[in-house]
Amino acid sequence: TNATIMILPGDGVGPEVTAQALNVLRAVEERFGRTFTIRSRLVGLDAIEAEGTAISDDTFEECAQSDAILFGAVGSLPAGERRSGGPRPEQALFRLRKEFGFFANLRPIRPSESMYGASSLKPEHLKGTDMVFVRELSAGLYYGHMESIPGKPSEIRHTGRDTEAVDTLLYTEAEIERVVRAAFEIAAGRRGKVTSVDKANVLSSSVLWRRVVDRVAREHPAVAYEHMLVDTCAMRLVRTPADFDVVVTENLFGDILTDEASMLTGSIGMLPSASLGVRRTQGGMFGLYEPVHGSAPDIAGRNEANPIGAILSAALLLRHSLGLGKEAGAVEEAVEEVVRAGYRTVDVHESGATVVGTQEMGRRVVDALLQR
Amino acid sequence: TNATIMILPGDGVGPEVTAQALNVLRAVEERFGRTFTIRSRLVGLDAIEAEGTAISDDTFEECAQSDAILFGAVGSLPAGERRSGGPRPEQALFRLRKEFGFFANLRPIRPSESMYGASSLKPEHLKGTDMVFVRELSAGLYYGHMESIPGKPSEIRHTGRDTEAVDTLLYTEAEIERVVRAAFEIAAGRRGKVTSVDKANVLSSSVLWRRVVDRVAREHPAVAYEHMLVDTCAMRLVRTPADFDVVVTENLFGDILTDEASMLTGSIGMLPSASLGVRRTQGGMFGLYEPVHGSAPDIAGRNEANPIGAILSAALLLRHSLGLGKEAGAVEEAVEEVVRAGYRTVDVHESGATVVGTQEMGRRVVDALLQR
Ligand SMILES: CC(C)[C@H](C(=O)O)[C@@H](O)C(=O)O
Ligand SMILES: CC(C)[C@H](C(=O)O)[C@@H](O)C(=O)O
Repeated sequence: TNATIMILPGDGVGPEVTAQALNVLRAVEERFGRTFTIRSRLVGLDAIEAEGTAISDDTFEECAQSDAILFGAVGSLPAGERRSGGPRPEQALFRLRKEFGFFANLRPIRPSESMYGASSLKPEHLKGTDMVFVRELSAGLYYGHMESIPGKPSEIRHTGRDTEAVDTLLYTEAEIERVVRAAFEIAAGRRGKVTSVDKANVLSSSVLWRRVVDRVAREHPAVAYEHMLVDTCAMRLVRTPADFDVVVTENLFGDILTDEASMLTGSIGMLPSASLGVRRTQGGMFGLYEPVHGSAPDIAGRNEANPIGAILSAALLLRHSLGLGKEAGAVEEAVEEVVRAGYRTVDVHESGATVVGTQEMGRRVVDALLQR
Repeated sequence: TNATIMILPGDGVGPEVTAQALNVLRAVEERFGRTFTIRSRLVGLDAIEAEGTAISDDTFEECAQSDAILFGAVGSLPAGERRSGGPRPEQALFRLRKEFGFFANLRPIRPSESMYGASSLKPEHLKGTDMVFVRELSAGLYYGHMESIPGKPSEIRHTGRDTEAVDTLLYTEAEIERVVRAAFEIAAGRRGKVTSVDKANVLSSSVLWRRVVDRVAREHPAVAYEHMLVDTCAMRLVRTPADFDVVVTENLFGDILTDEASMLTGSIGMLPSASLGVRRTQGGMFGLYEPVHGSAPDIAGRNEANPIGAILSAALLLRHSLGLGKEAGAVEEAVEEVVRAGYRTVDVHESGATVVGTQEMGRRVVDALLQR
């Protein structure tokens, strides 16, 4: 069982945080007597510079040969530097998501009690919060702009005296069904509750979404479920977050709501994600694992970025793609131990805590893991 | 200057909260020696039952004759009860917004210090928060489903073995420009900062949006501005809300973000809105004023709803459509006085406060106003 892990560090703080996640994977090898084959390739801005494309066919092929991908972040070019037609760093992510069929993006959010002080929410509102977002990742407005996808036109065009821009929000029943089914299966292994989020009083795609949820729900009579409008959900996430168990929603709503919910932990730097598709590996599912935060170019190279999102993404990788649940749990406990001891990167600093850099945070997690 | 105000109470708690707002308008007449002509008509579910449509042509015509509309709320039918083609209560709102050209929806958010206890956010994060959302209200995904608008198709259709649903997100340069210009003008009269929110790394319509913002900004060199991605904004609203002054964004992003931001005040029941268009009135602009909360059918008829959103909407009406800025300010101060004295509807209850019903809250605001 010599699993192959492909590391794509990417742009900005991506290389710094994936370096710490890699150290943690090495510590897992040592502590649990495992061996991983680790490869690494360029994506994003460096790949555009070196290879003329945000992700090369070779890199893509090597990803296809691996059991899992650990991804850092890719940076977006400022609007001014974008030429229509020219390669953009995000395309690496879109291509990976689309071509590997990663349709379910899991984002667990469980603020550690020892970190309530770092959150902008009052502790009484945070208490008991433990939810997983299941964001649809392969369709919707995100793919309205790819000319390669027929029937999903998107462009800026001139019409007589005005200019207009169009994006298309398209969902098929099959696309909705597979992600909703994943959400119900995850809920069955948790507290047994699904909240499906849409805007069914406005969108046709949401009306179809509700219809599919109602149908899939009948296959899971033991799981309770509810429909919630996206605007209501945006309120409830900061008001009564502990009421949620599994939240399933379409691509762009998932993007917005998970970033909002990340604030429950105090910083988006804390959060991991797993993107899962259809290919099975020896130990589970082929997947792409990445911190929820972006490339944060303003703090890149300053040893300031929070590596916990990347480290917890590595834990998800161990669990979902390699079938190493015990090892994953050990990583998560090591992280909890370090934050409970009061070590914090600057994004989640609070009075009484000890501020450490990216590298020291990673080293402390490694130490905690090796000592368990 | 005998202004005509059209009241459309609508569904659920709409009639209860507009009744209190009306009492406040009557108190303004008394206190300041004004006379308003007040009319009232059915919209929403009752209109569908009585007149077969969510808003009748007669009602519409009467609205057109008035200086301003005070709107309660309309309820959405559960998905199961919707027949395609049948009238839906929200159509009243969409028709009013579209046909009167209400393109700018203003939602001021300024949590009262005396109510920090009711918010789920910590006081240190709330401190100094005072922002206005300017939500585009006449275009985008909301109008992708109206068959009456050519070129914006939206439907659920069967394609061979699958079913798909499409919504269209379309913006013209002119539609973006007018709302962005309104935002810059408002910012010029406030702290002089505009945050424009989009998803320009994914949407064509957002790329066009940014381009227009950059252009309009050049007409307002004294106003500082920034572009922010919608996911980032969803974070910052609960992390550093005091950093915002004027936030301008497209229709659906505005819907989600304003509901999220409403939690800064503890309850969506606290928030007013003004929808402004192009027609001038004697005292300002013709407009539609409504609380941000919806019809809340679960608490309708129980004297529990918070009337402050509706009362503050009446204040915005006085200011923007009737040119009665002093009167508007007096209403706002009366509300502040009552909450500072510790009176709260149940949605914003906190320990030490006195819980009152919809009617008592309204009566206390009237009393405070008459005693000023
Ligand atoms: C970088 C960006 C295109 C991406 C997205 O919107 O999906 C990011 O925000 C995310 O959530 O992974
Ligand atoms: C009732 C609904 C259609 C409406 C909207 O989404 O615009 C409401 O949420 C609002 O914000 O006014």
